[in-house]
Amino acid sequence: MPREPRAPTLPLPRGDGLSLRAAIHRACLDAIVAGRLPAGSRLPSARQLAADWRVSRNTVDDAIAALQADGVVVRRVGAGTFVASVPPRRKAAMRETTAAARAVLHDVSRWTRRTTERDAPGAVPRPQAFVAGLPDVDAFPLALWRRLTAARLRTSGRDLLGYAPPAGLPALRSALARHLALSRGLACAPEQVMIVNSTMQAVDLAARVLLERGERAWIEDPCYPNLRSTLAMAGVRAVGVPVDAAGLDVAAGCARAPRAALVHVSPACQYPLGVALAPERRRLLLDRAAARGAWILEDDYQADLALDGRPPAPLAAVDRSGRVLHLGTFTNAVYPSLRLAWIVLPAALVTTFEAVRAQLDHHSNAVAQAVLADFIDGGHLAAHLRRMRALYAARRDALLAALARHGVPAERIGPAHAGMHVAVHLPRSRPDRAVAARAAEAGVAVMPLSRYAVAARVNGLLLGYAALDERALTLAAVRLAPLLR
Amino acid sequence: MPREPRAPTLPLPRGDGLSLRAAIHRACLDAIVAGRLPAGSRLPSARQLAADWRVSRNTVDDAIAALQADGVVVRRVGAGTFVASVPPRRKAAMRETTAAARAVLHDVSRWTRRTTERDAPGAVPRPQAFVAGLPDVDAFPLALWRRLTAARLRTSGRDLLGYAPPAGLPALRSALARHLALSRGLACAPEQVMIVNSTMQAVDLAARVLLERGERAWIEDPCYPNLRSTLAMAGVRAVGVPVDAAGLDVAAGCARAPRAALVHVSPACQYPLGVALAPERRRLLLDRAAARGAWILEDDYQADLALDGRPPAPLAAVDRSGRVLHLGTFTNAVYPSLRLAWIVLPAALVTTFEAVRAQLDHHSNAVAQAVLADFIDGGHLAAHLRRMRALYAARRDALLAALARHGVPAERIGPAHAGMHVAVHLPRSRPDRAVAARAAEAGVAVMPLSRYAVAARVNGLLLGYAALDERALTLAAVRLAPLLR
Repeated sequence: MPREPRAPTLPLPRGDGLSLRAAIHRACLDAIVAGRLPAGSRLPSARQLAADWRVSRNTVDDAIAALQADGVVVRRVGAGTFVASVPPRRKAAMRETTAAARAVLHDVSRWTRRTTERDAPGAVPRPQAFVAGLPDVDAFPLALWRRLTAARLRTSGRDLLGYAPPAGLPALRSALARHLALSRGLACAPEQVMIVNSTMQAVDLAARVLLERGERAWIEDPCYPNLRSTLAMAGVRAVGVPVDAAGLDVAAGCARAPRAALVHVSPACQYPLGVALAPERRRLLLDRAAARGAWILEDDYQADLALDGRPPAPLAAVDRSGRVLHLGTFTNAVYPSLRLAWIVLPAALVTTFEAVRAQLDHHSNAVAQAVLADFIDGGHLAAHLRRMRALYAARRDALLAALARHGVPAERIGPAHAGMHVAVHLPRSRPDRAVAARAAEAGVAVMPLSRYAVAARVNGLLLGYAALDERALTLAAVRLAPLLR
Repeated sequence: MPREPRAPTLPLPRGDGLSLRAAIHRACLDAIVAGRLPAGSRLPSARQLAADWRVSRNTVDDAIAALQADGVVVRRVGAGTFVASVPPRRKAAMRETTAAARAVLHDVSRWTRRTTERDAPGAVPRPQAFVAGLPDVDAFPLALWRRLTAARLRTSGRDLLGYAPPAGLPALRSALARHLALSRGLACAPEQVMIVNSTMQAVDLAARVLLERGERAWIEDPCYPNLRSTLAMAGVRAVGVPVDAAGLDVAAGCARAPRAALVHVSPACQYPLGVALAPERRRLLLDRAAARGAWILEDDYQADLALDGRPPAPLAAVDRSGRVLHLGTFTNAVYPSLRLAWIVLPAALVTTFEAVRAQLDHHSNAVAQAVLADFIDGGHLAAHLRRMRALYAARRDALLAALARHGVPAERIGPAHAGMHVAVHLPRSRPDRAVAARAAEAGVAVMPLSRYAVAARVNGLLLGYAALDERALTLAAVRLAPLLR
């Protein structure tokens, strides 16, 4: 009788940081779920798999025992190990996604339709000249963060597993209150600090707690596009208010939407234009909010990355009417995938926000919060920000110098006193979308300023410089400059 | 000349897992921010502090250098180190919170007012008899989790710092798709899996993407209270549909709100009653959704903790109309503070949900996702769930045996085939809130079932047993039983 033909060996995934046992377990599962090992088929023998993969017989036995415990395979003494009946993967479930997604647009809410038509999901942003909004994560002290994480999981890991308070871990709220007092002159009690996942979550929460549906809110025009979507998603009617060299034009806002219940403003560094709110505008805005009973959402955007000296104190530090909610994020100061941000609430709103947050997504990841508290308390956040300010200032200087050397007039270039990007304005005769398309052909990614406009006639490009070294910035500037002259 | 009086030593916080240098840094900051060391005052000398605290002079010097770098203290050669001008903490900012929070209720949105009046934020839940909704985190393999975390940060930490895809890390989406295929018979492509922070975030997202404001949704009555708040917050009008021994009464739903655009249902284990949706009801519900073009949000609550054999397949596994969104959470299967959950989306909705999520809070914490992917791929999730099912089954059995021994009639006790709690029904003559109050006097925490009702006349108690050992459960049952007979 001829010997049974040798069963084909399964491919063994490697290099994913999995243990050998886990890799074998996964290889078998993949083959079963994908139908390469159908129900009833015999698994290659442990001896054969061990020989094929050059691993110990014990490791293979362990992996197969785990499959057996999962009910995925059945061992029959003397006969071998057989694949149990498991559901096949539905065939090509994703193939018709694009067409189907288009069809389903008739089936989703109106604002979703508008939002997805305007802002299709792009690829995850990666550092390249001049993609904006990315900090230099290579400069982040990862080894230190790893040590702090290990220490926290070792010393208080078990205490961190259960539910945490909706407003955040007390240690982080205290650490952040201290940090804000020192770095931003904002005196607040730790109880006023609420930890959230992102500034947009803060906007969403604030809009739904503070406003009735259909009420109006001022937003800066141009502004961060996600802000418009988030407010629309919360049922708020956003009204664009122009921004000039002195920041938000408060008088224009009063004329356009005098009864707006909320104002979103980024006084330290306006996104995307980079201007700061002038002192007389600050006073006007605070007076108006107090008189009208409007709320101010102050996004302290890029204040921790002020490159030319200390930025002015936040509105929340001078407000006496209890109408300012102060927002900030750790996305740029620490790293983007941490997903931690904050709101400093007027004391009267604390209980209400806690009650609402507890019912929505409860709280933010607790281990991340605990490690961040230690990072701040150990003085590492302040030290990291000092290093990043020096690094980004040098990069900004290199970019601006290269643009100047290659003939881009200084008056075209917006303020770059804070943050990670600079706006370059273009004459009307050269529409920014066309220039951005030509730049892309030259291998340079730039975002047209008009993309950020609500109704404002802005025309220019946004150049991010934070995540690239000076040489890369200079090289890209050389390629871009001819389009800007 | 008498010597200058010795400056009082600052209290040195210890035992918080901080390094000595960080503890000193924090002690000084605390004293400065709290005003105990006012601006202009001289810091005790480094030599004196080192002697007082019995630490090395170098450590103190390092901490003071960090304060100096922060601009908090100024060193004057020959004169000493002085506190710079920093803003004082606003006095007793939180003292009037309660009164002010009451006043501010006239200032927040109507649904916020209703929500916070109904559900004031309670304390963070801790294990005690019979608090429901807490898994036994002491049984979680924390040492293993710590090793997986360290390995991930070591091998791919830098890659995990930047933005991640809005739907989640590919590794986790794949691992979860495999896990759901094997454990729940749900065949889906990894691309259909979206990682979110909580099932309530999933409900919020789905309601806002799929429904226009003011549209109706069925919810089970009684149900999880946060579900009502979340739907209200999303602008949806929730209609309670009664639950009987066969689960959601689909016919009653059709009579009450025939044109509902969405149905929220927990077919495996209804919260809080513990019943499963009967086969004929499942068919009726799927047919109705397909005929009406309604969406089904299937919360696969407690299916992974089925204690008496395999639960029926989820609705999403048998649906052919592409109208079922399948939700689940890692809160009980892994641990609560992880804040990770999932939606399995019909293929046609994937792109739309990605676009919306990207604009709201972007994505969930990436390191947590990566570690969880390894936990699942290594077979550890399946193994942990096997252990927890055995543990919880034994605890359930101990509780039910103790109640029976102490005279609680078996017909009063609801099904307990899955999960972490059981409902005990009471005769109308004994209102559950009164019984719960008497139980609290006896030192036993129980939740009245009427708290979960929309309009249903449920009367009973919810007893959680997952986080307590059999002895504690038995002792508490002895104290509670006289109130239930």
